[in-house]
Amino acid sequence: MGVLVLAIAILPSSADALHLMRGECAGPQVGKIVPKGKLSAAYLYIIYAVLTLATVIFLLIGKMPLFDSVCHAMGAAGTGGFSIKNTGVAYYNSPYIEAVLTVSMFLFGVNFSLYYFILIKRFKEVLKNTEIKVYIAIIAIASIIIGINIFSMYNSVPQTIRYTVFQVVSTMTSTGFGTADFNQWPMLSKMIILMLMFIGACAGSTGGGFKVQRVIIMYKSAVKYMHKIIHPKSVNIVKSDDKTMDTETIHGVHNYFIIYMGVIAISLLLISINNEDFTTTFTSVITCFNNIGPGLEKVGPVNNFAFLSDFSKYVLSADMLLGRLECLPLIILASPSVWRKNF
Amino acid sequence: MGVLVLAIAILPSSADALHLMRGECAGPQVGKIVPKGKLSAAYLYIIYAVLTLATVIFLLIGKMPLFDSVCHAMGAAGTGGFSIKNTGVAYYNSPYIEAVLTVSMFLFGVNFSLYYFILIKRFKEVLKNTEIKVYIAIIAIASIIIGINIFSMYNSVPQTIRYTVFQVVSTMTSTGFGTADFNQWPMLSKMIILMLMFIGACAGSTGGGFKVQRVIIMYKSAVKYMHKIIHPKSVNIVKSDDKTMDTETIHGVHNYFIIYMGVIAISLLLISINNEDFTTTFTSVITCFNNIGPGLEKVGPVNNFAFLSDFSKYVLSADMLLGRLECLPLIILASPSVWRKNF
Repeated sequence: MGVLVLAIAILPSSADALHLMRGECAGPQVGKIVPKGKLSAAYLYIIYAVLTLATVIFLLIGKMPLFDSVCHAMGAAGTGGFSIKNTGVAYYNSPYIEAVLTVSMFLFGVNFSLYYFILIKRFKEVLKNTEIKVYIAIIAIASIIIGINIFSMYNSVPQTIRYTVFQVVSTMTSTGFGTADFNQWPMLSKMIILMLMFIGACAGSTGGGFKVQRVIIMYKSAVKYMHKIIHPKSVNIVKSDDKTMDTETIHGVHNYFIIYMGVIAISLLLISINNEDFTTTFTSVITCFNNIGPGLEKVGPVNNFAFLSDFSKYVLSADMLLGRLECLPLIILASPSVWRKNF
Repeated sequence: MGVLVLAIAILPSSADALHLMRGECAGPQVGKIVPKGKLSAAYLYIIYAVLTLATVIFLLIGKMPLFDSVCHAMGAAGTGGFSIKNTGVAYYNSPYIEAVLTVSMFLFGVNFSLYYFILIKRFKEVLKNTEIKVYIAIIAIASIIIGINIFSMYNSVPQTIRYTVFQVVSTMTSTGFGTADFNQWPMLSKMIILMLMFIGACAGSTGGGFKVQRVIIMYKSAVKYMHKIIHPKSVNIVKSDDKTMDTETIHGVHNYFIIYMGVIAISLLLISINNEDFTTTFTSVITCFNNIGPGLEKVGPVNNFAFLSDFSKYVLSADMLLGRLECLPLIILASPSVWRKNF
């Protein structure tokens, strides 16, 4: 979403622009929304605007000032997670506001095609969509396990649910809003939060991360592979939402995973030069590459990245760009042969 | 190598046995060594025995007692890394013994097919082998960077080289012998050591880890993928040692990578229940799954795993088995449909 879709909506549609969009929307789509690039972008922006406006209105109802409401609504909409208060969303200390933002972040983490299908009343497409089910299931399971794990810290069911669900949704959608210092939580909860950073939101949403749809495809591909080893004569077809996935899509997801892990490995080596502890080094890369915000230890929710060297900041800035644009457009842009051809 | 090759050498060759061997030697091979399973295993055992014997003799020359020599030679040969002394190889404090073990570990981390090719004087096959070049290059580059990084700790070029090369080879071959407490090294060196644990030795060696050959295939596959995105009309062929890699091998490596990362993710969650710090949790899984031995912090080179809960020990034991057998044979064994068919 975002910059590139905007560029496509404004620029004359051409093969080149679509090529770029395929890079940005590298995640496998639920289906072609509308054949024309321009129309599609317009629909996406209407959905985006309506959801943002709804968030503003609900925040205003919660007595949040107008300026703050608009800022936080946009922070949730872009899953950017930038708050105008130093203590973030925790500043308002309002369960209602947190609930509104939780719902808003959740909705912006859903594949936008689904909203389009709801608009044109093709509910069947929504109901048979696997990604949304897995997305909800991961949020539910993560919340339940973390809730049980941190219950002793809050000693109250409503408080535990409040902090847990907000943090899970904020992390999974790569927003990064914070109301609790999860660096103080037990290891199991921290590990789940880290895994959620990796998984990320749904494909075709405003969220970052690896995307739920890719995780599903990788899981299905691996299961089929094991099945094939046990039954060598079986036919190796990976299905998604009743449709057979073509080998090229699966191959693309595999290669994206390799590139993804490769970028993380190189970044880890470069950030290690800073000689911080392992947890800080590791989580700073994970949180930047997946566009979350806070990591653990020295880059935890109540800290910031100011202490890192300039070099590390350049590396993490590159990670944020690579993660946000899903690597490929930037790699294409950096390729000399592209420049040679077009200019 | 090891148990399964032995089983195949003794058991009558059958389709089932070869099926198992393909599981154990899941790494893409340089080429079929000899067509018959039995003959191949015999050759491998002769090479194995000769190299082990040579290590014993060279250790004896270094005035190591006979029993110690045999034990350490076998520890290097199986890349097991179990020493009969509490302080490990550091006990002997002998640069000569460390040099012998370094060479021995290095040789056991090489694909055994290469020794066979040398035996039958097909040197060309050895020279055009990419894996051995990458294996040597990784060891050299890792040693140089770590050497520069830790030089200030030893303040002597020979001492720095001695500790660095031993640790790099010991980790890369998944042996895990130790002469220095690398947990005290700067973060960059520790991060490189962790990466070496992941990469592991060559395919078809006695070493563990992900295997150099798989890393090469993944790298080539990702590069081809990016090339294909930039030049959509190019033909997507991945080559290895002048031979075209078939899609099934590449697909297999991709899926193995997914299974590999999946096992690590599940293990991390299970070990997190222990509520140790992130570094201990993370490196305990990495070091066990890749069959190294020491990790960082509480499971560092001068510590052990005794403090972990019984449950964690079961999980890490499973990881060691899964890593050693490259997941697939155990997954096949655990599959109900295999039991239904054969018994």
